Amino acid sequence: MEKIKVGILGATGAVGQRFIQLLENHPWFQITELVASETSAGLPYQKICQWKLNKPIPEDARHLVVKNITSELACQILFSGLDATVATDIEMNYAKAGFPVISNARNFRLEKDVPLLIPEVNPDHLQLIKKQKANRQFSTGFIVTNPNCATVPLAMMLAPLHKKYAVEKVLVTTMQAISGAGYPGLPSLDIMDNVIPFINGEEEKIESETKKILGELVKGEIVFAQFDVSAMVHRVPVFDGHLLSVSIKLKKKGEIPEIKNVLASFGSVPQKLNLPSAPKNPIIVKNENDRPQIRLDRDAGNGMSIVVGRIRPCPVFDVKMSVLGHNTIRGAAGAAILNAELLKMSGFFS
Amino acid sequence: MEKIKVGILGATGAVGQRFIQLLENHPWFQITELVASETSAGLPYQKICQWKLNKPIPEDARHLVVKNITSELACQILFSGLDATVATDIEMNYAKAGFPVISNARNFRLEKDVPLLIPEVNPDHLQLIKKQKANRQFSTGFIVTNPNCATVPLAMMLAPLHKKYAVEKVLVTTMQAISGAGYPGLPSLDIMDNVIPFINGEEEKIESETKKILGELVKGEIVFAQFDVSAMVHRVPVFDGHLLSVSIKLKKKGEIPEIKNVLASFGSVPQKLNLPSAPKNPIIVKNENDRPQIRLDRDAGNGMSIVVGRIRPCPVFDVKMSVLGHNTIRGAAGAAILNAELLKMSGFFS
Amino acid sequence: MEKIKVGILGATGAVGQRFIQLLENHPWFQITELVASETSAGLPYQKICQWKLNKPIPEDARHLVVKNITSELACQILFSGLDATVATDIEMNYAKAGFPVISNARNFRLEKDVPLLIPEVNPDHLQLIKKQKANRQFSTGFIVTNPNCATVPLAMMLAPLHKKYAVEKVLVTTMQAISGAGYPGLPSLDIMDNVIPFINGEEEKIESETKKILGELVKGEIVFAQFDVSAMVHRVPVFDGHLLSVSIKLKKKGEIPEIKNVLASFGSVPQKLNLPSAPKNPIIVKNENDRPQIRLDRDAGNGMSIVVGRIRPCPVFDVKMSVLGHNTIRGAAGAAILNAELLKMSGFFS
Amino acid sequence: MEKIKVGILGATGAVGQRFIQLLENHPWFQITELVASETSAGLPYQKICQWKLNKPIPEDARHLVVKNITSELACQILFSGLDATVATDIEMNYAKAGFPVISNARNFRLEKDVPLLIPEVNPDHLQLIKKQKANRQFSTGFIVTNPNCATVPLAMMLAPLHKKYAVEKVLVTTMQAISGAGYPGLPSLDIMDNVIPFINGEEEKIESETKKILGELVKGEIVFAQFDVSAMVHRVPVFDGHLLSVSIKLKKKGEIPEIKNVLASFGSVPQKLNLPSAPKNPIIVKNENDRPQIRLDRDAGNGMSIVVGRIRPCPVFDVKMSVLGHNTIRGAAGAAILNAELLKMSGFFS
Repeated sequence: MEKIKVGILGATGAVGQRFIQLLENHPWFQITELVASETSAGLPYQKICQWKLNKPIPEDARHLVVKNITSELACQILFSGLDATVATDIEMNYAKAGFPVISNARNFRLEKDVPLLIPEVNPDHLQLIKKQKANRQFSTGFIVTNPNCATVPLAMMLAPLHKKYAVEKVLVTTMQAISGAGYPGLPSLDIMDNVIPFINGEEEKIESETKKILGELVKGEIVFAQFDVSAMVHRVPVFDGHLLSVSIKLKKKGEIPEIKNVLASFGSVPQKLNLPSAPKNPIIVKNENDRPQIRLDRDAGNGMSIVVGRIRPCPVFDVKMSVLGHNTIRGAAGAAILNAELLKMSGFFS
Repeated sequence: MEKIKVGILGATGAVGQRFIQLLENHPWFQITELVASETSAGLPYQKICQWKLNKPIPEDARHLVVKNITSELACQILFSGLDATVATDIEMNYAKAGFPVISNARNFRLEKDVPLLIPEVNPDHLQLIKKQKANRQFSTGFIVTNPNCATVPLAMMLAPLHKKYAVEKVLVTTMQAISGAGYPGLPSLDIMDNVIPFINGEEEKIESETKKILGELVKGEIVFAQFDVSAMVHRVPVFDGHLLSVSIKLKKKGEIPEIKNVLASFGSVPQKLNLPSAPKNPIIVKNENDRPQIRLDRDAGNGMSIVVGRIRPCPVFDVKMSVLGHNTIRGAAGAAILNAELLKMSGFFS
Repeated sequence: MEKIKVGILGATGAVGQRFIQLLENHPWFQITELVASETSAGLPYQKICQWKLNKPIPEDARHLVVKNITSELACQILFSGLDATVATDIEMNYAKAGFPVISNARNFRLEKDVPLLIPEVNPDHLQLIKKQKANRQFSTGFIVTNPNCATVPLAMMLAPLHKKYAVEKVLVTTMQAISGAGYPGLPSLDIMDNVIPFINGEEEKIESETKKILGELVKGEIVFAQFDVSAMVHRVPVFDGHLLSVSIKLKKKGEIPEIKNVLASFGSVPQKLNLPSAPKNPIIVKNENDRPQIRLDRDAGNGMSIVVGRIRPCPVFDVKMSVLGHNTIRGAAGAAILNAELLKMSGFFS
Repeated sequence: MEKIKVGILGATGAVGQRFIQLLENHPWFQITELVASETSAGLPYQKICQWKLNKPIPEDARHLVVKNITSELACQILFSGLDATVATDIEMNYAKAGFPVISNARNFRLEKDVPLLIPEVNPDHLQLIKKQKANRQFSTGFIVTNPNCATVPLAMMLAPLHKKYAVEKVLVTTMQAISGAGYPGLPSLDIMDNVIPFINGEEEKIESETKKILGELVKGEIVFAQFDVSAMVHRVPVFDGHLLSVSIKLKKKGEIPEIKNVLASFGSVPQKLNLPSAPKNPIIVKNENDRPQIRLDRDAGNGMSIVVGRIRPCPVFDVKMSVLGHNTIRGAAGAAILNAELLKMSGFFS
């Protein structure tokens, strides 16, 4: 089988680097184009990229000549790791030009005709693409987004609970890794020996995106889920991995062992289709009383599983627990790649 | 005025070291006895103590010969920084022997006849001492405790809100410093680049102590406050300072500006009596959207103020905010010293 | 080909865990025995091990029932990750009992008849085994050791320079990771926001082991290399990876480009034999002026390469540079496994 | 006595903030002017400064209206915390305009007629001021500089040894705190869990400045000290405090106890004059084998002492040791303030 040629928008940024790393030896996709705004066309990637991952640049990407957004691109789909400050126009233009754009940027996530996709949770939301193409007069192009890095583990954990018990209220406190802020991101003087109780716009994203993802598709439109979410976010001095402390009120009541079982047995379309980046267990439930821990558990399922633990009754609501997800894998580049895999298997790349 | 001679139980431990540091040049108290279990009597403090604070050992403590619990003590009151594993018997025996014991240990905090004191919050609970002496046939001795290091900032913040609005539900997520675990405490391999969602017994302490502190004294007994508290605790890689993310449901409703004002104007007996360790403002309210931060705000009021910020409406409850307290000062040694100051001014050291 | 059955001594310790991780799917070796002193026999490994690596316990080790040193062992060779406090007797007894013991412990490193082996540097030192067997009346058993974790990168870097230019003086300052101290190792209160200029016994090990490794085998005895080494060691707050800053005086003079080339082209027996754990390039030379960096370069060659950079003239000696090695891989478990691979190919496991 | 009015150039930067903190309640100096380039004149300091120190902005500075370099300044002397990229012209212009400029910037440190001053080491170098004024046609103005933050502890430690034994060769490896890079300085992604073996221009500064400071004034010119210095610098993940590992060859030989005594008894003009910022002991010698440690010892003498330990014979040279200095106090703002105190007592502010 010939591989699908893919391009990376924002190839030198933090998310772009993860795309390149995770697509190394991908069975279906092959990187043929790297696009970066800040560079003059014509230089090989390794010359212009300040590579920050601890494995070296994959061989095939190392020598690719970087292009800019005015160049012709020899690829079929685009992954976007663009910064939100520039993503709106660039992504829209590529979609208009016929490219499926699988984006990690926040810009189109809440648009009515754009899927905000977690393949295990809301694969049916891909039906919005048809509407999107019609609305916007796209031919073969379209935009599909993945959620914010802290929203992903929250929405994945809530999905099976909402289905079985109907979620009524959610209070979530996050402890988020520095890699979530990109590079250069947080000055070391600001975050070492410190916790910062603020990330600009993050609480709003978590509160709104979660309800879209868990919303229902009714007559071609998404009706947001009807529960209340309150998020309090923090930056903590860890490298990768967002840990969430969540307390939930449910409409129907469930016992703790049953809730654990509902989470641990969660699996969906990506697992059934055996998508290359799908983890065997989307949700791993730990029973040790001091897990999940960020450093020890963030790489579970190659960073594509979320890890849940300390599931116990809450004196105020019904159940509380800790939830962990790898922010630059399941919460960014890995999420987008899994989205692309589902799109391919669903026939959206024609 | 001659100073009151004081002794430190557990003088070589983390809390004991803070007692010694904070009592240097205290206007009312003078350390004359250092007691440590793990040492043979007869050696000067500086020879046996692995001092871990970044200011050197105060001169007067440096040369004091350390005693053990079988020694005669030439002091009038005792501060206890003892570990909970040994505090029960030792503190009880000293109280029986006539010493007021101002303890940071958890062992007697929930006893019915023992005050769990925050001088700004529940100074009237000192009336329990009379009962305690009668119950236990103490003569001049008694035990007074201060709360757990994470409970202190929570209870201080809730106190004025509970008085004005009546608290109904509280969800609190803590991010706690490594110094709270004492020495050697957490192995560096466990906490660097990590967050641990568990501290043994801590959630229970926060949930129960808060309700005792905010309880009312009715006919000589404390009736616990009648609201629900749910705590989720975490250890984070910072040195000092516990940060709490709190969401609160109130019975009477209040607007955010009024709530800020209620907190900022909080002051009580210690401020009126001008106690030496009392901060001018027990609660400092920050309006910047990224404060309090642990490193920048933990030393406010010499570590005796708590700092509150991000006060805003909660989509699930009524109000949410961040609360910071210095765990080894306001949450341990400083708390006990302020307790002793109130006891002195209230005539309990006769 | 049937795999060689191997056992791990000290299987629950930090080095033991790395052995288990690195031997997962090894083409020649298969773990069949796990030995730990602190446990009663009969429990599966996953029940008794506090696993601290961020990838999970390999499946085959997870369920192995741990034995103690009185048990019969169904394996052909033993890897020792034992603590130095107990290694002397245990390793000696297993060697007497017929087991080749591939040890990471320091106890026998300087014994006259025990090879202190780096396969790229002194494979001929394996001739000592014959003498060792004779001296100690061993039959099939023997002991082979690998150097201290900070010695390895120093000796590997010096080896080709010594051969070509003859080293005369070496001043080395190390910055060593916390994982080198094992678990629990350094309390977080001691090492966060700190550098400690002392590691017990470490400077002596570096100064003596380097000269044995680079020594010549003359009439069956090792004549230590005749240069002076002065080591100043430090513990720094990083997880893995020891960085060395080295200044060298050479007898014959060499230009910097030539020195770079001598280092970069270094390769030896393990590369020729294509041993499974041998890195393609034992020494990687970086030309960027800010490399090697611990976090970015420690995993080079799967942790088996050392990375050298900032090679430049020294105003006091001839050349100075930075040298990095992964302390728990190339400096411990990986070193021992490479030793075993060389032993196997050299016919020492009969 | 009326205080001398002082201004701070670069008042919002990292060094500027330290100036403001250290000058709070200074017995001789009072801040009356704050100058910052990046701001429009007219706003109070607290409005425009991102204050990064953990004690709050001193009251008197908080409300000072910040000026820019075109404003009239109502002060007698200027402290400069300017960035090197802009310091040359600004400092020169203020000196021309009649202001003594006490600068922390590197720009004029190696100028032949500018003192590079450590008051304990080379107070006689102030004689250069006369020449400077003549050369440059200054009236009352002049420029005096303090050394680089890593040079200070090295030069202070070497000074008494050079006087007694004559230094011949020095190899120094530094481990430097992140605060030395200013704000925003190092991205957290670059320095957490990492050591970086490079700081731009730093090695050259250490190698040249040390020889100027220890140089002799001969016929009004400084003859640089005639020994070799080789520096290898590193950035480590600590907040404040530069630790140096130093090995020294001496012309005359000295025993270790005598060397310790020479260092510990070092004291000079600032101590004799009892200058307000002068530490009682400029060099503190530790005998514990694991000191100095950055976190525990950087604040010695209020950050104005350097702390030396592990003094022992070197197998390659004569003596080796660890040396620690607080980089933003003794290595920057505190150094400049001590310089100003010496200038005042020496009658240079007329």
